[in-house]
Amino acid sequence: MSKLSDISDRYRIAPGSRVRLTRWDPGDKWVTDGDKAQGVHRREQLAERLDELQDLLYAQKKHRILLILQGMDTSGKDSTIRRVFHTIDPLGVRVANFRAPSTEEQARDYLWRVHRKVPANGEIVIFNRSHYEDVLVPRARGHQSRREQQRRLGHIADFERMLSDEGTTIIKCYLHISIEEQRQRLQDRLDDPTKHWKFDYSDIREREYWDAYIKAYQDAMTVTSLPHAPWYVIPANHKWVRDLIVTTILVDTLTRLRMHYPPAPEGLDQVKLD
Amino acid sequence: MSKLSDISDRYRIAPGSRVRLTRWDPGDKWVTDGDKAQGVHRREQLAERLDELQDLLYAQKKHRILLILQGMDTSGKDSTIRRVFHTIDPLGVRVANFRAPSTEEQARDYLWRVHRKVPANGEIVIFNRSHYEDVLVPRARGHQSRREQQRRLGHIADFERMLSDEGTTIIKCYLHISIEEQRQRLQDRLDDPTKHWKFDYSDIREREYWDAYIKAYQDAMTVTSLPHAPWYVIPANHKWVRDLIVTTILVDTLTRLRMHYPPAPEGLDQVKLD
Repeated sequence: MSKLSDISDRYRIAPGSRVRLTRWDPGDKWVTDGDKAQGVHRREQLAERLDELQDLLYAQKKHRILLILQGMDTSGKDSTIRRVFHTIDPLGVRVANFRAPSTEEQARDYLWRVHRKVPANGEIVIFNRSHYEDVLVPRARGHQSRREQQRRLGHIADFERMLSDEGTTIIKCYLHISIEEQRQRLQDRLDDPTKHWKFDYSDIREREYWDAYIKAYQDAMTVTSLPHAPWYVIPANHKWVRDLIVTTILVDTLTRLRMHYPPAPEGLDQVKLD
Repeated sequence: MSKLSDISDRYRIAPGSRVRLTRWDPGDKWVTDGDKAQGVHRREQLAERLDELQDLLYAQKKHRILLILQGMDTSGKDSTIRRVFHTIDPLGVRVANFRAPSTEEQARDYLWRVHRKVPANGEIVIFNRSHYEDVLVPRARGHQSRREQQRRLGHIADFERMLSDEGTTIIKCYLHISIEEQRQRLQDRLDDPTKHWKFDYSDIREREYWDAYIKAYQDAMTVTSLPHAPWYVIPANHKWVRDLIVTTILVDTLTRLRMHYPPAPEGLDQVKLD
């Protein structure tokens, strides 16, 4: 099994490099040479470590963790959250879902609603979709020029820089599936009555824009994968691989913070309760 | 009486110019050659115009107006708000007061609490103090290095650029009083029992930092007076001058937006009520 940092490095987009998603294999199983049982076991071990790290984070109340999840429909954002965080104390973890903006949100700049939800000291916040939607959806649908997209990517880079300077650790994951895998997952939803609630006719229309979304993602990640806010391309055709890699990156990133429990109040060792 | 734009131009800090507040006269009465009666009359006329412009703004719901008021203690931020806006429809005007940050606010970046309060489409929001406090107070008190201040000024310039790109018109006013005028105003508070509630012993201690505050203000305004978010130095020893100039700048800025009432719903002229 590779070191945590080797795994993080492998899936991180190097700052300044031009992103081409065709060079990333959505079916990649490198992390355990394809051995699923080993992968599942490894993730269980890492989940325990993540639980310890989250406790430290919460106790120290010094750092703030922002995990941004993006990906095509059916790429597994919801299930990644469920599976990676189900063993973590919900007291210190918050999920922020960003769907179509409300009237109140549309009346302000597009960063307004996301800034409201950023983590406080000691918190892990997961953005289930994010401000990146505002440079993906209009761009892919042809309502945003390249210049407008680049301008917003500048805002986003500035915003994340400020968050980082002020104490937030940012991790951005693109859950990478193939168009064939998406077809299969949508078909599964159609075939299974207990999954019909997840089905939306608009998901089929969105498939026509697949290539345009890929291009918009590539442009966005090229500009905004920076040392203080890296993008990771997570192979997500295999759910166990996806969950293992996201967990690994979290554990690796949190470990690097070198956190410690705050010192006990002075004289605590003298305290005797009656 | 000068044109509105000549008055705005006179008190605006030119982008890129090094600010020296000793070159700005806090007792300036140029705007009406010192004629107070004429100044008061002029402001009443402009207040009517401001009321009309605010109605247009509210009806069109296209633009957002952010007025930032900064200044030393007793410089008149509260009374400027009261006097400039008392004839404006409160439905479309909101004041955001920024005092010492709460525990919840301290747990996030310093722009978090201000971003929450930015104007929506059709709104005028007045920041009574603002994010600039975070590059003034710690800097003047010696808790922030020049490098740290410059880094935050970069964040602030980026933040205001994003707001502007996304449709917010930003006006920043520094209410400029002399140290002697402040002494007089604090003494008035001490001598008048109905003003004792405004008195705070910390105001006296803050006076020791006067020069450090002036320097911090100069550095901040030098970096952040930009075409899309200009700073104005408002002579504020004379309240009628201060109120007239702030009103003038608002009317001038709102006029430049060339707003118009949205078109009537089609067929409205055919509607006959029973």
